Amino acid sequence: MENLFISQFNDKHIGDDGAVIYHKKGKWVYSSDSFFEDVHFRADWLSLEQIASKAMLVNISDAVVMNARPKYALLNVAIPSSYDKTQLIDLANGFKKIAKKFAIQIIGGDTISNDKLHISITLISKSKNPTYRTGATTGDIVCYTGDIGSVKTDLDRLLNGQKIDKQSKFIAPQLRAKFFKKIAKYVRSAIDISDGLGFELERLSRIDDIGFKFTTDICQHNMCSGEEYEILFTINPKHKDKVQHIAHEQGVKLNFFAVVSGGKYRHECREHHF
Amino acid sequence: MENLFISQFNDKHIGDDGAVIYHKKGKWVYSSDSFFEDVHFRADWLSLEQIASKAMLVNISDAVVMNARPKYALLNVAIPSSYDKTQLIDLANGFKKIAKKFAIQIIGGDTISNDKLHISITLISKSKNPTYRTGATTGDIVCYTGDIGSVKTDLDRLLNGQKIDKQSKFIAPQLRAKFFKKIAKYVRSAIDISDGLGFELERLSRIDDIGFKFTTDICQHNMCSGEEYEILFTINPKHKDKVQHIAHEQGVKLNFFAVVSGGKYRHECREHHF
Repeated sequence: MENLFISQFNDKHIGDDGAVIYHKKGKWVYSSDSFFEDVHFRADWLSLEQIASKAMLVNISDAVVMNARPKYALLNVAIPSSYDKTQLIDLANGFKKIAKKFAIQIIGGDTISNDKLHISITLISKSKNPTYRTGATTGDIVCYTGDIGSVKTDLDRLLNGQKIDKQSKFIAPQLRAKFFKKIAKYVRSAIDISDGLGFELERLSRIDDIGFKFTTDICQHNMCSGEEYEILFTINPKHKDKVQHIAHEQGVKLNFFAVVSGGKYRHECREHHF
Repeated sequence: MENLFISQFNDKHIGDDGAVIYHKKGKWVYSSDSFFEDVHFRADWLSLEQIASKAMLVNISDAVVMNARPKYALLNVAIPSSYDKTQLIDLANGFKKIAKKFAIQIIGGDTISNDKLHISITLISKSKNPTYRTGATTGDIVCYTGDIGSVKTDLDRLLNGQKIDKQSKFIAPQLRAKFFKKIAKYVRSAIDISDGLGFELERLSRIDDIGFKFTTDICQHNMCSGEEYEILFTINPKHKDKVQHIAHEQGVKLNFFAVVSGGKYRHECREHHF
């Protein structure tokens, strides 16, 4: 459904995690993501500070994967009118904590009263050399960072009324900002894993009319685990050693699991939102 | 409630209709506004094209009143999953129609499924000389454009289950873009009337620690009519003739109704959202 809506707008900037605009000096990347109660989370799953922090992180993830440094944020926040002062401050603290950590200035936005907590954030980021989703080339090796699968496990726990650990990536996505910045010059195409590895591979497949020859089996559970916010990228194999060296330095686990080939790839996951 | 939340972020850019960022060449104005079903409108009041158009217009209003020209838009749209193809196209057409009219490029955003239609738009605008809310000075004459009051009348009609005219400003706000661009150099402070003239006067009063001496009586109904999207501005009285001349040329009605004075102003309206 969203695809039909998006296809009505045929602007060349649409299709990446952010839109790159060339100004006279430098390139600016604009990205925007929504984080809605009862779409992305339930109110009793996370504290308000965790919700605001995660809303920021999933937006910053878009900038990171485009090799852009977020500088400014606009927050559109629809707030339940039942919230008391402490809740409002907790919510604000979540935004501020992450903004401070990533040196982002919160410059404006809009707040309204609503029945549910709905957050949309726009980030304005700067990049000398943006990386894009498009660009994967036959023969490229395909890699994702970190471990995937735990977010689906934790989401299933939450849906069953169980608790999850505070360190869960469902609560606090681990962005690989420093690592990606260092490897960006070797990267041919990149996307963050927001809907699940399978979904993102299908996106790359459709954009560049490519397929993937798997060198490692990835189980369905991991393939369909959304909101991992790990990075999926492809590189020319000649850069593999350099990229692995940087990953080692930065303490980031890499999983080379496929090679870009002809053909096409279609995922076998269900839509992951509850 | 929103004020308490906003007060947690003490960035110098917050407080205007948009945030002005000085780049090496030129100034960019970033503004963001939400337009939510059951907060700003009910689904049976407007067609989907009208809803999308109005969401764009109320955002463009922020840029207009800062003397900025919108260039790019990011759309965050939460769409009810019940919508069929025709509805999605109608919705998209509303965004596209206004984008075309104002030469705005829709460069990205985010779409999600939701129970209600929730739209947040971020505009990226350019300005050589932005106008701000702050700056009103004792002795300035205070003016608003157009006629106010009809939007409250129409909103009351809708709340009573009656129909309103397609030309209603509740459906299609009338922006005064060309007029305001021409008078901007004479303007000392400006704000668009989104919450009602009374609310906006109180905002100016609080920002610059000023009051208003009324030269014309404005009835409570008009004072408290929200979503007018007319422009409230102050000028040095010596520019009055020039501004009136431009208004006459552009076919814009002006209402000079007060003079900036000492003291303070507090509105006597109820919150206007239903």
